[in-house]
Amino acid sequence: MFCAILAGDIPGDFVHRDGTCFVIRDIAPAAPVHLLVIPNEHFEHLENLTPDSEAMLGHMASVARGAAAAEGIDRSGYRLVINQRGDAGQMVDHLHMHVLGGARLGAMA
Amino acid sequence: MFCAILAGDIPGDFVHRDGTCFVIRDIAPAAPVHLLVIPNEHFEHLENLTPDSEAMLGHMASVARGAAAAEGIDRSGYRLVINQRGDAGQMVDHLHMHVLGGARLGAMA
Repeated sequence: MFCAILAGDIPGDFVHRDGTCFVIRDIAPAAPVHLLVIPNEHFEHLENLTPDSEAMLGHMASVARGAAAAEGIDRSGYRLVINQRGDAGQMVDHLHMHVLGGARLGAMA
Repeated sequence: MFCAILAGDIPGDFVHRDGTCFVIRDIAPAAPVHLLVIPNEHFEHLENLTPDSEAMLGHMASVARGAAAAEGIDRSGYRLVINQRGDAGQMVDHLHMHVLGGARLGAMA
């Protein structure tokens, strides 16, 4: 699904796009601000990462932080979440990082 | 506090340690498995990351994935969480990544 959004086949509300990853708004937000940071390359799970793609993941966190600042929630606070498989409720098998904020958040698990 | 744990001044239940980061069990677990991945170097927040430390953050995610496998929760699923500041409930101003799993997790925010 995320590949189709990146390709433009499914519409996405983009807030950032670079050579490594893109950021869209979640269509079913779990907080006042809920963004998704998604690698351009299709990774399913963290075990598919290589030493090269470790840098990609760090870049995604930096992009997440920049997006949080652009949304005005970097000082009030935000949460980054990566869900992996069933127990975590991963719903799309394409690695993605949630950015949540804009209100006091609840428990993380 | 995490620096004191790394230095051995406060006891910590270490499950991993390398040149970049270490992993301990959370003393107040929010799930059956609750680990903390913590950089050896003292970073307070994500905005203190530089391009060099982006790789460090990716390494932390790889270590988290390895720790999840060692705990036997990589197939059932797990959640990685980084809380930043007040709205997210960040309680220690030293960057850390939670690894949560071992049961079906609740909402992420």
